[in-house]
Amino acid sequence: MATVKMLEYEDAPEEVRAVFDEIMQAKGIDFVPNFWKTVATHPPMLKQLWSEINIVMADGALDPLTKELIAIAVSASNGCDYCINSHTAGAIAKGMTPAMHGELMAVIGFFNKTNKLSDGYQIEPDVKPDVD
Amino acid sequence: MATVKMLEYEDAPEEVRAVFDEIMQAKGIDFVPNFWKTVATHPPMLKQLWSEINIVMADGALDPLTKELIAIAVSASNGCDYCINSHTAGAIAKGMTPAMHGELMAVIGFFNKTNKLSDGYQIEPDVKPDVD
Amino acid sequence: MATVKMLEYEDAPEEVRAVFDEIMQAKGIDFVPNFWKTVATHPPMLKQLWSEINIVMADGALDPLTKELIAIAVSASNGCDYCINSHTAGAIAKGMTPAMHGELMAVIGFFNKTNKLSDGYQIEPDVKPDVD
Amino acid sequence: MATVKMLEYEDAPEEVRAVFDEIMQAKGIDFVPNFWKTVATHPPMLKQLWSEINIVMADGALDPLTKELIAIAVSASNGCDYCINSHTAGAIAKGMTPAMHGELMAVIGFFNKTNKLSDGYQIEPDVKPDVD
Amino acid sequence: MATVKMLEYEDAPEEVRAVFDEIMQAKGIDFVPNFWKTVATHPPMLKQLWSEINIVMADGALDPLTKELIAIAVSASNGCDYCINSHTAGAIAKGMTPAMHGELMAVIGFFNKTNKLSDGYQIEPDVKPDVD
Amino acid sequence: MATVKMLEYEDAPEEVRAVFDEIMQAKGIDFVPNFWKTVATHPPMLKQLWSEINIVMADGALDPLTKELIAIAVSASNGCDYCINSHTAGAIAKGMTPAMHGELMAVIGFFNKTNKLSDGYQIEPDVKPDVD
Repeated sequence: MATVKMLEYEDAPEEVRAVFDEIMQAKGIDFVPNFWKTVATHPPMLKQLWSEINIVMADGALDPLTKELIAIAVSASNGCDYCINSHTAGAIAKGMTPAMHGELMAVIGFFNKTNKLSDGYQIEPDVKPDVD
Repeated sequence: MATVKMLEYEDAPEEVRAVFDEIMQAKGIDFVPNFWKTVATHPPMLKQLWSEINIVMADGALDPLTKELIAIAVSASNGCDYCINSHTAGAIAKGMTPAMHGELMAVIGFFNKTNKLSDGYQIEPDVKPDVD
Repeated sequence: MATVKMLEYEDAPEEVRAVFDEIMQAKGIDFVPNFWKTVATHPPMLKQLWSEINIVMADGALDPLTKELIAIAVSASNGCDYCINSHTAGAIAKGMTPAMHGELMAVIGFFNKTNKLSDGYQIEPDVKPDVD
Repeated sequence: MATVKMLEYEDAPEEVRAVFDEIMQAKGIDFVPNFWKTVATHPPMLKQLWSEINIVMADGALDPLTKELIAIAVSASNGCDYCINSHTAGAIAKGMTPAMHGELMAVIGFFNKTNKLSDGYQIEPDVKPDVD
Repeated sequence: MATVKMLEYEDAPEEVRAVFDEIMQAKGIDFVPNFWKTVATHPPMLKQLWSEINIVMADGALDPLTKELIAIAVSASNGCDYCINSHTAGAIAKGMTPAMHGELMAVIGFFNKTNKLSDGYQIEPDVKPDVD
Repeated sequence: MATVKMLEYEDAPEEVRAVFDEIMQAKGIDFVPNFWKTVATHPPMLKQLWSEINIVMADGALDPLTKELIAIAVSASNGCDYCINSHTAGAIAKGMTPAMHGELMAVIGFFNKTNKLSDGYQIEPDVKPDVD
């Protein structure tokens, strides 16, 4: 049970319902996920998050499935239960196969190991990259 | 400075040099990165890691660039300095453009936020995904 | 179920009961919370923690409600379920309103995002602060 | 050195300069902090972050100094160097005294300890809070 | 419920059953733990992990019980529920007493606190150690 | 540079000097480490931490070297630079050999990987341990 009473569709004011409608339409589902019913209890956060996710997850230089895999990598590294479930479901909906999931997990596991070895040995960078 | 004195190529025994040679050849570089010179101080770990990375990062259901982006996502979420530098360099070498990097960072940032909101509100999963 | 069998009031030795009594009186509750029944299985830790919390959470330069909000921020950033529930309840008892909670969560979420962006880009400090 | 070449004011396009001007004016400083020069390399993120921070950090149910203390708590729990420096400086500018800072650190330290004890013992919640 | 359907012994191919048999024999148990039934859905990971754990956990310069205590310390610091339960059970099987567990938890708690104080104050290293 | 000006021995009041003297004597060193000079800026924290560390690190059911190895495991998992350096030096002083350090790092690395796999797959505990 969340620490706040979620805002249900039938109790939501008009402006919140409008966002809920957009969420269900965009995701092709007929219910409002718990995450969105929870953040809707603080309407400025609901609007901010919904606006941001649409920019961040849009098809661009990276495709939506790749972005969803990255969301799983972040969520597994943070150990966030809700997020792991939600983004695993999201990735499946966008085409993640069992083979892709298996490789994804192997990559996540491996780099969580080498991250802690690098920190644990206090290894210094070889040379700085420069994206530009 | 690392917590151990790194094992330099010229001081390494034959079996370690063989791995060092493979690393330089595989990466197309003419120096052994600090990570590998460090873990070489514990030879069973050097061999284990080099064997594992070749399996994990191989081209498969996910391509090598996508795997490198996932490595950045893990490393940024963990705040591992060496790893962020190393994998950003690796991703550039595999074709990551500035636009891809910008979007990657936006995705990483966004889900680190929603991860902590989901935990902070103790939001319960809607429904469990099933990869299989 | 915890990894240890909690020490119940009726089974506790005199010195532990004395601490339990203080806890219930200080919090104005008629049961011993699971956290305290658990750490009581290692009595030196029970005493150390109860002594420390009374110093740390005392009204001082920061008021108790602000300290409870900070406890929520720490617990959400760490994803600690017990702690989030416990400190959210504690903050409500000290006067946290739904509006305060909503803003608190927005602040926690935002800075978890910028933390990971700062690490992910390896941004260098502008200038060091000096509290004194 | 960051993983991207920061976007300097003199090289920035008009729309980025406009945000830079707002940042310097709002903070009462005559330079653009490294964080903002870095995220400006991905303009949609610059705009999103600047818009969000103004909503999140506005004086509301919680005052700006309290919000800055929470930012320190998040940043210390995550071990983000840039953020700790930046928010400590920000809190001083908003009136944090050495006494407040000392108590803040004691609270942050204490709850990072109890968070890990709660997880390490797998302690179950006593009762769920309900903010509403 | 895990995000993947675990691979049960009776449904497993020969090569997976061989690993399952080794796991049960090595641990002296008559069931395959959920962790191993889960990673078995990606056979290269099953083999890699089983090979690695046998090297890593072998009696060597550190004894198996000490290694299990370290596993608990890592798992509690990361807040990994499955792992805390599994390694606490493993440590008990290897001789961890309640007194040892109590002291272990006190050490884990204390250093999670000082870690965050060290980061929160941005304390600089005194002098670098040199293991060699 | 730390976020506070450290309290040097010559500037410290009598009660702080008394603790500093105890620290140097206990560690057999002739300088006050930066950690202690930093927390001394908030004297109640200095006293609390010095009292607690003496209880926590005392020889008991676990020996001091094992406790120092656990401190490294916690610090590496958290990526705390100061702490990794400090506890690696402390462990060497208590007899950690290069072979022990190599195995320690391999254990830390391995379980950071399996922690994230367990979370990433949302694996459910097999059965709960019971320390008592």
